[in-house]
Formats: sequence, C-alpha cells, structure tokens
Amino acid sequence: MSADCSTLINGKPGERVSVHDRGFQYGDGVFETLAVQNGVALLWDRHVRRLRRGASRLGFDAPPEPLLREEAARVCDGIKHAVLKIILTRGVIGRGYAVSGNSDPTRVLSRLPWPDYSSTSAVQGVNVRLCRMRLAHNPVLAGIKHLNRLEQVLGRAEWGSEFAEGLMLDVEGQLIEGTMSNVFLVKDGMLRTPDLSRCGVEGVMRETVLDKAREMKLSCDIASLVHDDVMQAEEMFLTNSLIGLWPVKTYDWTVAGGGHKDYRVGQITQTLQEAIQA
Amino acid sequence: MSADCSTLINGKPGERVSVHDRGFQYGDGVFETLAVQNGVALLWDRHVRRLRRGASRLGFDAPPEPLLREEAARVCDGIKHAVLKIILTRGVIGRGYAVSGNSDPTRVLSRLPWPDYSSTSAVQGVNVRLCRMRLAHNPVLAGIKHLNRLEQVLGRAEWGSEFAEGLMLDVEGQLIEGTMSNVFLVKDGMLRTPDLSRCGVEGVMRETVLDKAREMKLSCDIASLVHDDVMQAEEMFLTNSLIGLWPVKTYDWTVAGGGHKDYRVGQITQTLQEAIQA
Repeated sequence: MSADCSTLINGKPGERVSVHDRGFQYGDGVFETLAVQNGVALLWDRHVRRLRRGASRLGFDAPPEPLLREEAARVCDGIKHAVLKIILTRGVIGRGYAVSGNSDPTRVLSRLPWPDYSSTSAVQGVNVRLCRMRLAHNPVLAGIKHLNRLEQVLGRAEWGSEFAEGLMLDVEGQLIEGTMSNVFLVKDGMLRTPDLSRCGVEGVMRETVLDKAREMKLSCDIASLVHDDVMQAEEMFLTNSLIGLWPVKTYDWTVAGGGHKDYRVGQITQTLQEAIQA
Repeated sequence: MSADCSTLINGKPGERVSVHDRGFQYGDGVFETLAVQNGVALLWDRHVRRLRRGASRLGFDAPPEPLLREEAARVCDGIKHAVLKIILTRGVIGRGYAVSGNSDPTRVLSRLPWPDYSSTSAVQGVNVRLCRMRLAHNPVLAGIKHLNRLEQVLGRAEWGSEFAEGLMLDVEGQLIEGTMSNVFLVKDGMLRTPDLSRCGVEGVMRETVLDKAREMKLSCDIASLVHDDVMQAEEMFLTNSLIGLWPVKTYDWTVAGGGHKDYRVGQITQTLQEAIQA
C-alpha cells in the first residue's frame, strides 16, 4: 500500500485483467490521465466528473468518488512527479456485444513515469504538423474520453520524434484537436477553440483554460473552425492535463501539399499559461 | 494441451493480459470469431486473411499462419461445437499513443460456448429492428474487424431479447450492416449488399455468399443502399460466421417513426443458404 503499489485493479495490487473484460474485447470503457505532484493528482474533481459523464454516456455506473480518491492516494502516496491513469471498463459481462445482468465495472489505477517532455516546450513552444488521419463523426461518442482510440493511434503513427504533436481534422476538413491535446487559436485578440459536438475529446485542461478565460473577461468562441483559421491565426496553443499549455512555434502542413508557418508566443497565450499554472 | 485448455495467450494457457497491453488501453488490435465443428475452425483461410489484412492496416505484423493454426488446433481439439475467438493486439509497446521500437503483438485464442441461438432462426427467419445508433465514416478503419467496437456495443444495447439483430445506418442514413452481421437485400431477383468502403465490417460469411452467388451466376451489386431499399426489398437476410445465413422475417423501424414490414423467406435466400451449408 505504498509507493511500490503502482497498479490497483478493483482495489487490489496487480497488473493483469481478464481477456474477457469488455475493455479488452471492445474498448468498452473510458479513461483519464492525470498529472501527479507531491502525491496529489491534480484537477481531480474535473477528471472524476468527466469519467462519470463518460461511463454514464456508455450506460454503466462509475464507482463512488471517495473509493477512487482513496485508491488514487494509495497509488500516488509519496510520489513527487508521475502520471496517474484511471481506466474504467464495463467489466466482464454479457455475451457478444450484448450486455446482460448487472454491470460490474473494472477499475484500474496505474502510476506511470512522467513523460520525457522537453523542458523548453512550455516556454519556447513546440513544432506541430498536420495528420493525414481524419476523425469520424459520432455525436454519441463525442466529447468523452472512451477507449476506442485507433484514430489517435494511427494519427500519432504518422511521425516519429520530429514533432511534438499532430493536428487532426474531421472527415469534413474541420479542425478538431491534436492526437493527445486540445487546440486554441488567437486572432485579433480573439480566442477560439473547436466545437467538439461531433468528435474529439473535451479535455480537462481545455475546460480549465475556458474557465480562466471567462474569469479574465477574455472572450473565447467555441466554433466550427477550418484549416484556413489555423493559417490566419497569430497565436496557437495546445492543452492537456500533463503538458498544461504548450505554445505552438511552427506548424507544418506539407502532408496536405502546404508548407510551414511560424507563430509567435503571444500575450494571450502567455497570460493563459500563467493563469493555469497559478 | 487438451480440451481443458480454453484460452492461450501467446501460446501459453492463461486468461489474463497486461493492463498495459494496447488492446486494453486503446482497442489497438483486430479480432476474428470462428465457428468450430468437430475440432475444426471453419472458413479458416478467410478468417486468417482478414486478420492479417486488419493488422497490416493498423501497421503491425500478424503471426505466421502455421503458428495460429497449431494453437487453434490445441484450443479446439476434440470439441464438437464451439466458438473460437482470436484477438490480436499491438502488444505492450510505446508510450501514450506513440509506438516505438519493434512490434511484439499479443495473440489470444479463446474457446467459448456456442451461443444459444434459436434452432428455428435459420428456417423461419428472425425479427430485426432498426438501431438509433449510427455508424461513423472512417475509410482507414472501414472493412477490417478492429477492436474499437463501441458503436456496436451501444447499438446492441438498444434492445433486450425481443429481436435477433438490429440494422445500423451510417451518419448519412445509408444502410451498412447489423450490429454483428452483414445484410443482403433481394428485389426483382437482384441481390444487393451495402458498400463498406466508409464503415462496416467485411464479413467472412458475406464474402462467402458473394463468391457463391458469383459461382451460381447470380448477380450481386455492392451498392450504396438507403433505408428505402430495405422497405422495397422482397427478401432480406443476415450473415456471419456463427449464424451462417438468417432470413429476416419481420423488420421493425418504429424507432424512426415507422412501422413493421414482413419479408418472405424467398428462393434466392434459400438457394444461398443451401449453397453455404454445402
């Protein structure tokens, strides 16, 4: 029950789940990835809220928050800097796609090493490219962080280490998000981020940035954005719970017959970055 | 290594996989479901071909066919009637969505009890309904039997046992397939089945029916079909590797404000059913 216990499955130390678990069979579940600092999982309430919202959308119950909190504390106890991943599946139940009987979800809490992000990314900005892979529209699954993530896996597989992130458009060519992050654009002092009602993940850090912007009376449009909006933006930044906020330094869309564009790490980007760090 | 060995994971008896397996983390893999009769997995070559095609589309190597065959024989030895499920994932590799290093896929072969399908389904036909859940378009993932199956899970969750299957349309309203089967329509002696280039699974039994139809000089159009085509069809039937071919007896689309329609178990349906049973 100390720092040695890096994974709990339904409250018990272990690293293995049944091959009959619906998470493994169908990706039938949801997950969260949290930053851990000095034993504490950050933005806890927002993550648990999204986890519950996702499970509810899929039609099963998330465990009570105090149980998750107690298990997260066990996994993160005494840890200075790490990642906490929570996976929640519908469990081992039913036959084929059908679900019969009562839901008995599987919960997995794993502590993972902090990724080796470059220390300069948050200050100087990162290099980003366009992905060829497009995101499909499914309003029923949009917004939640479910376990069907092949689009992100194949999007990320398009490059190695030359870029920090890839932007993904949907099947109609609208800008949606990065493979692992949400995206914001700034133009003429106006902040905008893509509407995620047909696809994409409503990131916890995206929500935090939107709240901070509201507090600062900085208007932010949640809008239908196209690639041309990326071209015309003066500032661009990415968010997720681990990276916080990364300014985009350069953008490469040669895969779509385009070129490169440089962005400045501007004032709105910097102000919001300071706000979420506070 | 006898009938007692119901699951093999990478060749070893067992029922559990790592929580870090990409199958569990992201649904990053493919699967096959085969009918087993008297120790033999039916339509083996076609299933292995699709498994390899799927893995290749996702960018990793399937194991050699002789290895799969040897393991299938171990799992199915002496078994009169059962289901063999093969799951192949990208394995435990990489960090986040990114894949680094060599692929080391996980293969799981599980023997499952034969489902309790009604014995009259193949003769008298089944009752089918329309699903509210729509299928998203993603040409990169279309056709293969990958592990991202939330759309099918949520489609199947719309009813209990009152129907044998639910038909699924895509986001544009085109007819694609059943939650666990492919669909064929007959009108004026013409056989048609939906085009699956934007979504859907290219079923092994669908392929078998298409081949049989070709051999019998029965033309079959692979076409863009809409709900109105379902309305105007005289015969409708469903296919998959376990059910073989089920005629549709009644169709219920009250969820879309419609009613009921009866179908006859007609000659083309019966002829093809006999052909695949032979």
